[in-house]
Amino acid sequence: MRTSIATVCISGSLEEKMRAAAEVGFDGVEIFEQDLMTSPLSPEQVVDLARELGITLDLYQPFRDLEGVSEEVFAENLYRLEEKFRLMQRLDMDLILICSNVGTATDWNDDVAIDQLGRAADLGAKYGIRLAYEALAWGRYVNTYEHAWSLVEQADRPNLGVCLDSFHILSRRSDPSAFSTIPAEKIFFLQLADAPEMMMDLLSWSRHYRNFPGEGSFDLVNFMVELTRAGYTGPVSLEIFNDVFRQTDVVRTTRDALRSLVWLADATCAALPAAGIDPQSEANTMALEALEPVAAPTGWDYAEIKAEETEEIATLLTQLGFTDRGMHRTKDVRLFASGDARIVLNELPLGVSGSVIAGLGFQLPDPKTSADRARHLQIPPAHRANRADEMVLRGVLAPDGTEVFFAPEQNGSAPGWLTEFGDPEQPVGEHELVTGLDHVNLAQPWQHFDEAILFYTAALGLGTQPPAEVPSPQGLVRSQVMRTEDGTIRLPLNMVPQVLDVAPTHNQGTERVPTGSHDQMRRSAYPQHLAFATDDIVSLARNAAAAGLRFLPVPDNYYEDLQARFRLDEKFMDTLREHHLLYDRDDEGEFLHFYTRTIGTVFFEVVERRTGYNGYGAPNAPVRMAAQYAIERY
Amino acid sequence: MRTSIATVCISGSLEEKMRAAAEVGFDGVEIFEQDLMTSPLSPEQVVDLARELGITLDLYQPFRDLEGVSEEVFAENLYRLEEKFRLMQRLDMDLILICSNVGTATDWNDDVAIDQLGRAADLGAKYGIRLAYEALAWGRYVNTYEHAWSLVEQADRPNLGVCLDSFHILSRRSDPSAFSTIPAEKIFFLQLADAPEMMMDLLSWSRHYRNFPGEGSFDLVNFMVELTRAGYTGPVSLEIFNDVFRQTDVVRTTRDALRSLVWLADATCAALPAAGIDPQSEANTMALEALEPVAAPTGWDYAEIKAEETEEIATLLTQLGFTDRGMHRTKDVRLFASGDARIVLNELPLGVSGSVIAGLGFQLPDPKTSADRARHLQIPPAHRANRADEMVLRGVLAPDGTEVFFAPEQNGSAPGWLTEFGDPEQPVGEHELVTGLDHVNLAQPWQHFDEAILFYTAALGLGTQPPAEVPSPQGLVRSQVMRTEDGTIRLPLNMVPQVLDVAPTHNQGTERVPTGSHDQMRRSAYPQHLAFATDDIVSLARNAAAAGLRFLPVPDNYYEDLQARFRLDEKFMDTLREHHLLYDRDDEGEFLHFYTRTIGTVFFEVVERRTGYNGYGAPNAPVRMAAQYAIERY
Repeated sequence: MRTSIATVCISGSLEEKMRAAAEVGFDGVEIFEQDLMTSPLSPEQVVDLARELGITLDLYQPFRDLEGVSEEVFAENLYRLEEKFRLMQRLDMDLILICSNVGTATDWNDDVAIDQLGRAADLGAKYGIRLAYEALAWGRYVNTYEHAWSLVEQADRPNLGVCLDSFHILSRRSDPSAFSTIPAEKIFFLQLADAPEMMMDLLSWSRHYRNFPGEGSFDLVNFMVELTRAGYTGPVSLEIFNDVFRQTDVVRTTRDALRSLVWLADATCAALPAAGIDPQSEANTMALEALEPVAAPTGWDYAEIKAEETEEIATLLTQLGFTDRGMHRTKDVRLFASGDARIVLNELPLGVSGSVIAGLGFQLPDPKTSADRARHLQIPPAHRANRADEMVLRGVLAPDGTEVFFAPEQNGSAPGWLTEFGDPEQPVGEHELVTGLDHVNLAQPWQHFDEAILFYTAALGLGTQPPAEVPSPQGLVRSQVMRTEDGTIRLPLNMVPQVLDVAPTHNQGTERVPTGSHDQMRRSAYPQHLAFATDDIVSLARNAAAAGLRFLPVPDNYYEDLQARFRLDEKFMDTLREHHLLYDRDDEGEFLHFYTRTIGTVFFEVVERRTGYNGYGAPNAPVRMAAQYAIERY
Repeated sequence: MRTSIATVCISGSLEEKMRAAAEVGFDGVEIFEQDLMTSPLSPEQVVDLARELGITLDLYQPFRDLEGVSEEVFAENLYRLEEKFRLMQRLDMDLILICSNVGTATDWNDDVAIDQLGRAADLGAKYGIRLAYEALAWGRYVNTYEHAWSLVEQADRPNLGVCLDSFHILSRRSDPSAFSTIPAEKIFFLQLADAPEMMMDLLSWSRHYRNFPGEGSFDLVNFMVELTRAGYTGPVSLEIFNDVFRQTDVVRTTRDALRSLVWLADATCAALPAAGIDPQSEANTMALEALEPVAAPTGWDYAEIKAEETEEIATLLTQLGFTDRGMHRTKDVRLFASGDARIVLNELPLGVSGSVIAGLGFQLPDPKTSADRARHLQIPPAHRANRADEMVLRGVLAPDGTEVFFAPEQNGSAPGWLTEFGDPEQPVGEHELVTGLDHVNLAQPWQHFDEAILFYTAALGLGTQPPAEVPSPQGLVRSQVMRTEDGTIRLPLNMVPQVLDVAPTHNQGTERVPTGSHDQMRRSAYPQHLAFATDDIVSLARNAAAAGLRFLPVPDNYYEDLQARFRLDEKFMDTLREHHLLYDRDDEGEFLHFYTRTIGTVFFEVVERRTGYNGYGAPNAPVRMAAQYAIERY
C-alpha cells in the first residue's frame, strides 16, 4: 500500500510536516497550497527536500471554482490554472485536485462544465499534468461522485479523471458500490477521512471534525473494499481537517495518522474474501497488507496504581475485602487481590501530587501476537525491568501514558506471576466479596481523545459505544465507553473539561512522546477510578462500613427523586440509603453501586449488575461528581 | 425589571450558584432539577438560603414528556408530577416548567394533549401550583409558541399558561409579533438566551452554544419590545446552556449574565418609542430601565505597552518614525508619538516574560457618562494613581485585563495630557509618516471571548463583524472584529488556540477577578499587535529600512501566488518585494501592509488603505503567522 497525507492535516511549517511524514513512514504527501505559499522554501527546495527524505509529492491541492462559469470568468480561471501548472512543473508534480464549483457557477449547464473541464485538461496536457476532479459534498451543482464521473467521462481526456474522497461521499450517505462502474485508470486519486456522527452543515462538519480512519463512524472498510473491487491502484491518502490535529505535536499526530491507515488496510484485508477478493492475489490492487490478527482480551490481568503514598489506598482496598498478598520479591510493589481483581500498588515519587492508574494488564489468547501487531501499528513499547526467572510481559503505552500489558489468558485460574508476590499459598480472605474488575474509568487529555479510541480499537479490538455527555459542577464531561462485545472488558474514557486540564507551559510543539510528566500531570489532576464487580453489594457495603470505609455521601434529594422515578418500595429505599447505594434500572435489569472517597485522584466503585443490566448508571454520574466536588471544595 | 437566572447556566454547586446570583444582584433563580438532586441541601434549607440571600425561587424546571400520551403512560406521568408538586411545596415554589413532548408522544392528537394538560393543571391547583407550558424547538409535535398557546387556551385553566423562550422561538425564525395575541396574564414566564449563527441541529445548538444576550446574533431587542407590547409583567430570566460558562468561575460568569440583561433592558428602552411605547409609562410592563446613553469612541487617545524591557520596543517605534516625547513628569512611563498615534511604554516587572498591550485610551464625547454607564454594567474599574494637577482618566478593566480608559474627545488636536510628558513644545519629527492607530489586535483567552464581545458592545457601542477563522501553523485562530460604524475604532479580537493557552494550575474555580496574573500570562504568551495607519507606506518602509528596522520576512512563494491571483504588474511587484509589503484588494480598494519582528509578544503592523478598502488583509494572516512561527522556532 502506498500511503500519503495532506499537509493540511497536521501542525507546523511545510518542512516540519514533510519531515514528520517521512519520519513515521508515509510514502508521500499532498501539497496543500497555503502550506507552500507560507513556506520560505522555494519549489525547487521542496523537491530537494522530498528527494532527501525519500517521499513523493502526490497531489497539488486545491484548485477551486474552475468549471461551469461564463467564458469571461473561465479565461481568468485558465490564467490562474496555468500559473499553477508552471508552479507544479517546478515542483516536479503531475497531479492537481480540481474541486467542484461552490461559488462562481450560477447558471449551470453540464455541457458547459464538460467543455471547460476538457479545455482545462488540454492546457494541463501541455505541461504533462493530470487533473483529478472531485465532487465536494456542498458543491453547488456537482456534489456526488457519480455526477463528477459523468462529466469526466463525457469530457473524455486521457489526463482528466476523478478524485474520490470518503468524507464527501459518506457524509451524504452516497453508496460506494458504484465505484466499479468507473474504469480503474480513471480514478486518479483517493482521499480518506473518517468523522464522528454529527448533525450540522456539511461544510462545518468537514472543516473542523474530520478524523483519522477508525476514530469516527464512517464505514471505511466497505469503502476500501469497493475501491479494491473497482481496481484502484494509486496511493491511499489522508485529508483530514481537524481543529485538534492542527494544534498537536506534528510527529505524534502523523504517527497516529499512519497507524489509522495500517489498521484500515488490515481490516479491509479481512473483509476482502467476503467480497470475493483474495487478498493474496493481484486483485488486491492497492496491495493492502494484513497485520497479525486482532484478538480481544478475555479478562483483566491486573491494574496498577502509582502514588507517592499508597497506604491510604491499601487501607481502602482492605476495607473492600481485598487480601494483602504481600510485596513482590524483587520490585517495590504490593499486590492486593479479591476474586479475579488484582491491584498492584506502586509507591514512588511521581513528581506530582495525586495518584494515577498507571498500568492495565489484559489477558489475551496470544500475547506475543498482540504485541507484534501493536509494534506494526507503531505503538510505542512500555519498558519494564524483569529478572530472568520472572514472567516477561510485553506492553505498550496508551496515548495517555497508561502502560498496557499483554498477559496470557488464564481461563479463570490465577496468573503465574502471583507466585512472585508474598506467600502464594496464602488462603483467600473471608471477606473477598469483590469478584473481579467490572470496568476501569480513565481520564483522557482532550488532545489525545481520538488517538485513544483508535489505539484501543486497533491494538485490543475494543468497540465503541455511543458517546455521552455528563454534566458536572465544573463542566460537561464527554464520555466514550470502549468494550469487548461480551462485556468482559469495559473501559469508559472521560475527556477532561478544558478548564481542569493542566496544560504544558507555552510548549510550542516540543512534546514528542506519548508519555511523560505532562500527560501524567493531566491525568493526576482529574479523578479516575476502578470499578469492582460483586454479586452481593449489600453485604460488601456492610462489611466495608464495619471496617471503617468512608463512602462517598449521597444526598437525600437523590433518593427522593429516585423514588419518584422508579416507585421503589420503602424497605428497598432504606437499604439503598443505609449503604450509600445508587440505583439504576433499564429494560435489561438493575444496577446497584457505591463509591469510595477519593484518595489523591483515584477512587473506587463497587457495582452489582442484576440480570442483564449493561450500562454504568449514567443518570447517577452527576450525583457522584457533585459529591466529589463538594468534598474537594470544603 | 425583575431578573432571574437558571442554575443550569453556571458552574458549581446549587449553593454556590444561589450565592453568586445574590452577590451580583439577581432577584431570583430558576431551580434546575439536577442541581437540586445533587445538592446536600434539603428543600427546606434551600428555602432558608434563598431567604437569607434575599432571592426568590421563580421556576422549577424541567418536567418532560407529560402530554399527548396514552392513558396508561399519563397515569405514570401524573404520579411523577405529583411527587414534584410535593417537592415544590417544600421549596415554597408555585411555578413549574412543562416542556412539550419530545419522546413518549407517538400518536398525536391535540384534543388528548389539551385534556391531559388540563388534568395536570387541576392536580397542580390542589397544591397551589401553576404550570408554564413551553414549546421546545425540537418538540415532536408542539414546537412553536403559537401551537403551545393554542393548547393552553383550549385547556382553559387559570393555573395553566405558557413560557416563552427566545432560543426556541428565534432558532426556528418564528415571529415574536404574535406575542400580543396571548393575554398578558397567560404568559407565565420568559426565558432569554442569545446564540451565535450556526448551522446544526437545534438540539445540539441549544445545549452547547447558547450565550448571554448581546453575545450572539438573535434580535432580542425586538423580542423584548414584542413582550412589552404583549404586556408581560413577570421576571426576565436567563436560561443558557453553554459548555464554556459551565466551566468558568461562577461569580464572574453570573456577573456577565446580569450585565447582559442590564444592557438588553437599556437597548430595549431605546427601541420602545418606535413601537409606540413610552418607557416612562406603565406600558413599560417589565419596568425596563435605561442606562446612560452609549456613545461610540470618536478616536484613539493612546495605547500602553507594558514590558519588563521596553528599549527594543522604543527602537522599533523610532525606526517607524515615531518621536520620543520623553518621560512622564511623575510616572515612570515614556511617550512615543507620530501623527495621532500615541504609544506609552511602561517598563515594570510583569512577573512573566514577554510584553502586553496593557491599556487603551478611547476618546469619547462624554467620558464621565461612559464611565457611569460602565459602572451600572458592573464593569470593574481600573485604578490609576494621579496627582492633583494631572488629568483624571476614568477607566475600566476589559475581560482580558486590558485597562480601557475613557478620554475626552479632541477633534484632531492633541490631548491635554501630552503636557505631562517631556517638552510639550518639541517639534514634530520629520519622519512622522504614521498618521494614527488603524487597529489594535488583542489576544483573548477562550474562556472570556463571549464576555469580551458583550463588554465592547455594551460599554463602548462597538459592533461585531462576521467572525473568521485563520489557519496558523499551530491551529485555527478564531477572529472577531469589533468596530465603530465609521471605522475610526477597529478592534480585532483573536481567540488563542487552546494548546497555546497557559491554563491556571488545576485551579478549581478560585479565579474571581477579571484581571491578574493568569490572564496577563495568557495574553503575554500569544502575540498581539498595534497597526499604524499611513498614507505613504512605501516611503515609510524605505525610511524604516534605512533606520535598521527588521521587517517580518515574506516568502517568495507568497509573491508568486499574489501575482497569479491579481495579475499585478512587475514594477509594482518589485516594490512589494523590496519593502516586504503584503497586498490585498477587494471591490472597495487596495490594502498594503507590513509587519515588524515581534518583541517579547508585541509586534507592529503598518497599513495603507487605498480608496475604500475596509478589511484587514485576512488572506495574508496565515503568511504572517507562518513567518512568526518560523522565527520563533529557529
